[in-house]
Amino acid sequence: MPKTPRGTTSRAKDSAGGAAPGTPWGGRFREAVDPTVARFTASIDFDRALARYDLTLSRAHTAMLHRTGLISSEDERALTEGLDAIAEEIEAGDFPFDAALEDIHMNVEARLGEKVGRVAGKLHTGRSRNDQVATDLLLYLRDASTAAERGLHELRGVLLERAVEHLDTVLPGYTHLQRAQPVRLAHHWLAFVEMFGRDAERFADQRTRMRNSPLGSGALAGSTLPLDREDTARALGFEAPSNNSMDAVASRDAALEFLSAAAIAMVHLSRLAEELVLWSSAEFGFVELADAYSTGSSLMPQKKNPDVPELVRGKSARAIGNLVSLLTLVKGLPLTYNRDLQEDKEPVFDSAATLRDSLTVMAGALATVEVRPERMREAANDPMLLATDFAEVLVAQGVPFREAHEAVGKMVRHCIEEDLDLRSLERAKLQEFHSDFPDDASQLASLERALEQRSLVGGTARDTVTRALERAHEHVRSRLESLDEENSRAPGAP
Amino acid sequence: MPKTPRGTTSRAKDSAGGAAPGTPWGGRFREAVDPTVARFTASIDFDRALARYDLTLSRAHTAMLHRTGLISSEDERALTEGLDAIAEEIEAGDFPFDAALEDIHMNVEARLGEKVGRVAGKLHTGRSRNDQVATDLLLYLRDASTAAERGLHELRGVLLERAVEHLDTVLPGYTHLQRAQPVRLAHHWLAFVEMFGRDAERFADQRTRMRNSPLGSGALAGSTLPLDREDTARALGFEAPSNNSMDAVASRDAALEFLSAAAIAMVHLSRLAEELVLWSSAEFGFVELADAYSTGSSLMPQKKNPDVPELVRGKSARAIGNLVSLLTLVKGLPLTYNRDLQEDKEPVFDSAATLRDSLTVMAGALATVEVRPERMREAANDPMLLATDFAEVLVAQGVPFREAHEAVGKMVRHCIEEDLDLRSLERAKLQEFHSDFPDDASQLASLERALEQRSLVGGTARDTVTRALERAHEHVRSRLESLDEENSRAPGAP
Amino acid sequence: MPKTPRGTTSRAKDSAGGAAPGTPWGGRFREAVDPTVARFTASIDFDRALARYDLTLSRAHTAMLHRTGLISSEDERALTEGLDAIAEEIEAGDFPFDAALEDIHMNVEARLGEKVGRVAGKLHTGRSRNDQVATDLLLYLRDASTAAERGLHELRGVLLERAVEHLDTVLPGYTHLQRAQPVRLAHHWLAFVEMFGRDAERFADQRTRMRNSPLGSGALAGSTLPLDREDTARALGFEAPSNNSMDAVASRDAALEFLSAAAIAMVHLSRLAEELVLWSSAEFGFVELADAYSTGSSLMPQKKNPDVPELVRGKSARAIGNLVSLLTLVKGLPLTYNRDLQEDKEPVFDSAATLRDSLTVMAGALATVEVRPERMREAANDPMLLATDFAEVLVAQGVPFREAHEAVGKMVRHCIEEDLDLRSLERAKLQEFHSDFPDDASQLASLERALEQRSLVGGTARDTVTRALERAHEHVRSRLESLDEENSRAPGAP
Amino acid sequence: MPKTPRGTTSRAKDSAGGAAPGTPWGGRFREAVDPTVARFTASIDFDRALARYDLTLSRAHTAMLHRTGLISSEDERALTEGLDAIAEEIEAGDFPFDAALEDIHMNVEARLGEKVGRVAGKLHTGRSRNDQVATDLLLYLRDASTAAERGLHELRGVLLERAVEHLDTVLPGYTHLQRAQPVRLAHHWLAFVEMFGRDAERFADQRTRMRNSPLGSGALAGSTLPLDREDTARALGFEAPSNNSMDAVASRDAALEFLSAAAIAMVHLSRLAEELVLWSSAEFGFVELADAYSTGSSLMPQKKNPDVPELVRGKSARAIGNLVSLLTLVKGLPLTYNRDLQEDKEPVFDSAATLRDSLTVMAGALATVEVRPERMREAANDPMLLATDFAEVLVAQGVPFREAHEAVGKMVRHCIEEDLDLRSLERAKLQEFHSDFPDDASQLASLERALEQRSLVGGTARDTVTRALERAHEHVRSRLESLDEENSRAPGAP
Repeated sequence: MPKTPRGTTSRAKDSAGGAAPGTPWGGRFREAVDPTVARFTASIDFDRALARYDLTLSRAHTAMLHRTGLISSEDERALTEGLDAIAEEIEAGDFPFDAALEDIHMNVEARLGEKVGRVAGKLHTGRSRNDQVATDLLLYLRDASTAAERGLHELRGVLLERAVEHLDTVLPGYTHLQRAQPVRLAHHWLAFVEMFGRDAERFADQRTRMRNSPLGSGALAGSTLPLDREDTARALGFEAPSNNSMDAVASRDAALEFLSAAAIAMVHLSRLAEELVLWSSAEFGFVELADAYSTGSSLMPQKKNPDVPELVRGKSARAIGNLVSLLTLVKGLPLTYNRDLQEDKEPVFDSAATLRDSLTVMAGALATVEVRPERMREAANDPMLLATDFAEVLVAQGVPFREAHEAVGKMVRHCIEEDLDLRSLERAKLQEFHSDFPDDASQLASLERALEQRSLVGGTARDTVTRALERAHEHVRSRLESLDEENSRAPGAP
Repeated sequence: MPKTPRGTTSRAKDSAGGAAPGTPWGGRFREAVDPTVARFTASIDFDRALARYDLTLSRAHTAMLHRTGLISSEDERALTEGLDAIAEEIEAGDFPFDAALEDIHMNVEARLGEKVGRVAGKLHTGRSRNDQVATDLLLYLRDASTAAERGLHELRGVLLERAVEHLDTVLPGYTHLQRAQPVRLAHHWLAFVEMFGRDAERFADQRTRMRNSPLGSGALAGSTLPLDREDTARALGFEAPSNNSMDAVASRDAALEFLSAAAIAMVHLSRLAEELVLWSSAEFGFVELADAYSTGSSLMPQKKNPDVPELVRGKSARAIGNLVSLLTLVKGLPLTYNRDLQEDKEPVFDSAATLRDSLTVMAGALATVEVRPERMREAANDPMLLATDFAEVLVAQGVPFREAHEAVGKMVRHCIEEDLDLRSLERAKLQEFHSDFPDDASQLASLERALEQRSLVGGTARDTVTRALERAHEHVRSRLESLDEENSRAPGAP
Repeated sequence: MPKTPRGTTSRAKDSAGGAAPGTPWGGRFREAVDPTVARFTASIDFDRALARYDLTLSRAHTAMLHRTGLISSEDERALTEGLDAIAEEIEAGDFPFDAALEDIHMNVEARLGEKVGRVAGKLHTGRSRNDQVATDLLLYLRDASTAAERGLHELRGVLLERAVEHLDTVLPGYTHLQRAQPVRLAHHWLAFVEMFGRDAERFADQRTRMRNSPLGSGALAGSTLPLDREDTARALGFEAPSNNSMDAVASRDAALEFLSAAAIAMVHLSRLAEELVLWSSAEFGFVELADAYSTGSSLMPQKKNPDVPELVRGKSARAIGNLVSLLTLVKGLPLTYNRDLQEDKEPVFDSAATLRDSLTVMAGALATVEVRPERMREAANDPMLLATDFAEVLVAQGVPFREAHEAVGKMVRHCIEEDLDLRSLERAKLQEFHSDFPDDASQLASLERALEQRSLVGGTARDTVTRALERAHEHVRSRLESLDEENSRAPGAP
Repeated sequence: MPKTPRGTTSRAKDSAGGAAPGTPWGGRFREAVDPTVARFTASIDFDRALARYDLTLSRAHTAMLHRTGLISSEDERALTEGLDAIAEEIEAGDFPFDAALEDIHMNVEARLGEKVGRVAGKLHTGRSRNDQVATDLLLYLRDASTAAERGLHELRGVLLERAVEHLDTVLPGYTHLQRAQPVRLAHHWLAFVEMFGRDAERFADQRTRMRNSPLGSGALAGSTLPLDREDTARALGFEAPSNNSMDAVASRDAALEFLSAAAIAMVHLSRLAEELVLWSSAEFGFVELADAYSTGSSLMPQKKNPDVPELVRGKSARAIGNLVSLLTLVKGLPLTYNRDLQEDKEPVFDSAATLRDSLTVMAGALATVEVRPERMREAANDPMLLATDFAEVLVAQGVPFREAHEAVGKMVRHCIEEDLDLRSLERAKLQEFHSDFPDDASQLASLERALEQRSLVGGTARDTVTRALERAHEHVRSRLESLDEENSRAPGAP
């Protein structure tokens, strides 16, 4: 994991006089930090992912310091220009990250000192790394949450397109991986549209619990300086400042909730992935993934492997592990900030990237997968799938369901033993199993009728499914619009 | 775990003719189930917790079957009376649970047969155990979710009462378990009021994703019978029937989200518990738990142990484990119902009970804990806690924060080496460390001032904290009222 | 989870004079424990599973107390007779468990008081519940570990029997759930014999880390009384007393290691289970589970579901959750005993039972599953499975493998596009793809040859597999013998 | 996580003619892989950590191919020289890693082609990436396992040194974080020496289950070529080839067991870390970490924070999460290789690095921590710690322990209510509590006596602890010697 940082430690050595040079806290210490410790405690290798948010925050903080009279116009201008220059360096990949400077916050501050001199020391006025990183993390999570929500709706969009195309493609619905009753492929995929819809809602709800800005909470108790917390909160797109300074710096439930939502969404993706793997097998043969979404074998020339859904399935385990890490980490920590909390970032970054990438490749795989309707219909034609319908024919005659089930169960056993098609039983034979079978019983049980008779809300009849497709399509459209709008209001939006 | 069921297997043997007697599916089978398998697959030991919900469901289903003409008035009356009688038996603890009948659903149905005869076989008309158990679980989760939300608000209420009492109790706020800055105990406990407030919100939000009734989704594809799904949905307190029958029987994200919310809340409780354990130690001595919330040692006569918070802390691990179990279980399952899903119940029941009980005992422990303000103030009087304030005194003179921090860091080192009180440094000495120290610097840094100067929103000043207490109190009150109202609308409410 | 205890609380009230009556620590307390706390902290509902071990321990302790002169012969006789009587009550299910008495240890001690009077108070001489429960848990784990090891070898035995029967049954080996190369079913199942063999070793190794008896470690620091720790260690089947009293009462890594070994074994079982589910599908059709190891559907009369392997697969998630619970629980606990540790038992009991039952039902399911060799061979006959062999034919001619792979890859694409059998390509056509194909290339690539040519150790040739079966069979036999012997030496063995 | 790979994709495009150029399996495919898929499925960003092992493997494989006559001497020489050159490039950091080439194996093979031309295509003769990566992973795990074992023994060595130094430093032993009985600091730290000793054993045992080489198992079924599996097994330091080809490529329990052992060891480290954090608090004040093992605060100039133990505690959560990821990943996968398994590496690499670094910094922190014996002794002098000894004085007079406990419990209550020192009670007063108190009871209960009387094995008496220190020291020495020897036998050892 640890990589060689690009920068050198020389700058660190210059920037402060204490025994722990280059650190923002050297004054009190007699002895420098052991190099193994410096490496062990540094977070710059991963928290550089927060750079963009940290700069946005620093700009808002600088503006506020000036507005409240804590720094002069001149200072504000110098700091802002320095921060802008750093933003450009980071954007361009030219920023000299330096592991000796611990984290992204100190890297930025030290670089600022190189650019604007002594005034850089005013940037940290009235703030602590504790409220700073808590705020950075919420800004990151807000973006990751909208990205996840968007990705989920986009995947739903792809599923809906393919579903429309396969409104009349029929396959067996399975329970226990046994063929159970026939369903439309559109209906089957709509099940996932529902799941991903709730997943998306979860991310939306989660953002409502990130409405308060920690900035201004200081290390844990606020500040004695006359900061304007409402000002920075608004500037950063929050509703209001946080209500309690200790909660603000010590809590990580926003990250936990994000990781939970990501893990649940990944578990749903893993189910869809499992089906693509199953359906790609020679035995099912229901689909063939596009070449562009498959890979081959280094040994076996004939192989075409469903690597994309396999990896998505595998990566769901990663999202679960990340959630466990953070729950376990936070468990039992007294207030307020403890250094353990530095470990909050990697699971969050990893789950955010894992979910985003998984949504992208699954959308691609589904958009391009070749469906084989004939293989599906062949499987759906299994007469055993009509057994329930035979029982319901009896129920419609007033037979208690249990009796009907028992009678049809015996019919099924008879057909298996005699290797017969359930639909081929003659009237007399049927009535041997139950005298209330009507004369047209066999006509009543057919694949088409099995689908069309299930016309209740949520069922498989053509009209029912069509309406469900329309409703879902409209929902996706309106949510994506809302997200665009939300995005356009975010600080730093283009 | 497995307990001896009260009933006998004799009834099972009578109730059906097939080779798998007593089961609801014997017709097709030639051979009875192996007894180890019967035990392995039975769920009645735990799913009896669903009995109340299953009966509510069956009554709503019966009423609908009659309203839609699928059963006669007479049948309806018989079924309803039978179900009522069974409800009474269960309430009274007299119901003869029978492991041979697999699960709660078949136990009820078989018992109904004993009470009302052949018509009992009509109860299962148009439904499957798949949609039945999915609906039962949502009904259970809805209750567990409101109970959790209520318990969280009640605990907040206790914290607020104790906080009001300790508005002027001062203790050190900690970071890294090192004394950092002084805070009011009221402020400290308000941090937890915030956390538990978000936890409560999470449960409320979660219920919005349980607004659709699975009932009528059948095994996976709906039903060919003319059921009225809107009717049962309404009767059971749902907004509407579920949109997709396959999603309805196959998904468990409602349970996953509940388990996530419970795990996060338990993690927050574990942090509060950790503090009670720490604070009860001889070294801290900040609190003493009531005898009624402590236990002793079987060996050491002097011991008084904080068992309640220790167990709450320990039980948070259980809530995490339960969440892992269910996430892992659902991962990679193809649609729709797979028997693995039977394992969804125990983690849900266990986390629900764990959270409910933990909230109760923590509320009791906090309501009765004896606080020792003098020990807290003594600790808060540590002059080192004013170091930040000294630095902020310099900042107010226009010194860049970094310079101020460096100067005060050196003062701190000087005081440690010379064993001096930071507040005792004379003006001249102070100005050696930084020439911009004003003459009254030492007066500016005091415990009271440290608290009162932090008057920003979320800070520790007396007025700020008073307002925060009022706002939180009002929030608890209004949420508890809403929950009462929600409860009064629930089906089966008294 | 919590069930009504059979006994009453009346005995508790009588047995001690303090304010926390019935407890073993009442003297110091002024106030009784709150009833919600009593329920919350009681462990008797689950730790009664330790009763047998606790009595064995108490008998060994009593004998030692006498041998070292700490109690008289008369006292020893009274205590031993009392303990024997209690053992009988527990065996017979007549023991009046009493939740008010917290745990199994105090239940036994209180009952002993009822039976033998004041001398019962001597039983706890020189011991604490801390060392007592640590010892009980190791005794339990030792049994659970040998049971797990035995169950694994028994399952291996069943797999070997079925493998011998299916030495000549050929099916496709899969990678990525794509048909890859043909293998013998015996070879396939031997893979699981290997996995379960390592799982069994893990349990055996784990017992070597439970060789030291905690008894005599007291609450945490040993005892001032002249106990003989070697004596009780030997009597309880340990090698020696533990080396450090604080480690002995505070550590739970024996339980963690057991839970890890159980989780890994369950994960292996889940893979075998997954295959049984897949192979039972209509699409694969490779096996049919016995009726005795299947269940049906309450709605669909035709269904026969592989519930047993599904539940085993599901229960592996439970074993993972249990491991997480205990790892998370122990994390960050300072020495020595903390009440959190009471929560160590339920995950251990649950994983032990889950593994034991899963091994039993899987052994039964495999012993009775009907294999369909014709369906397997049909699938294995897919000519694409010979692609690697074609490439290796070229390699044998000196062609670099990469070139060979590339050539055969193009042959495969050609056959797919033209819908041809790879084996049907004529010599000239083959040589178009690579000029080094020998004239008899097509003869060289056949199903039989594909199996027989793979005669390296670990490969699929008939002789190779036969030798592997013999070696594995011998290993199972000798391990089961060792376990019998180990068992016959255990304390309390019949 | 994802970093920009150094190389370019140009080489990939040249190296093969198919539609999926640069891949080792392009022949069969018509369409190139989608770029998002290429990124999603590439593992080169992390599996480059296997480079060293992969080259060792390839050299052994090359030698065997020659020895069995599958390649000529000339080919062998070319391949070996090419591999050596690549090893140097990797060592020097000059190897042009290329994400377009998927993984480390194809990166090496492609580079080899650039160096030695067409003969590079012979390297993959008779092997598959499936057996190759399984072997690489075992080689990595073997090293990681010995490194972990060594690190644990080294940490034990440091603990032993500090323990010897503090043989006569007395502090309270705690249960429930309440002072319980006095112990020597040497005794306290020996508890961790025991735990880490078992942790080390676990790694040693684990290596015995990695004794078989997967190489030669091919994709899943072995090879039709006359490879010599014993030869490569020996050359790579294995005992023998694996017994079953399908197990060899499909199993990951070696990784699971490693992750379990790492998680348990990290949990033990977290307990030691927790104590360092607690003891560094102002309230305990038992230790002060060296400046070199602490950091300060960016805001509060006075702060000195125990970041190292805090991070170690936090990182234990990471090790638990990694274990969960892999257990969950493997759960339910059918045989043999599935692409999910690619996700096995990151958790393994991360836990190996986390454990290694945590052991290093904890050893450093403990070697340099300043102990404050006077603060410890002050705490240990709490007279309540002698309560058990008073009870045992009565037991020595023949009083049943329960009676003695009850009497002393009342004494304790009396002393708390009257604010008295337990040792100050006069003979007459004592005898009020129990008439059997001997006249010299108060003399019998003293701090020194409390320690020295606990002279049982595992107890706190000076001689007992001295012997325990010697035994442990000898154990560490001999294990480190064994590891050195084991290391010197490893392939590629200097």
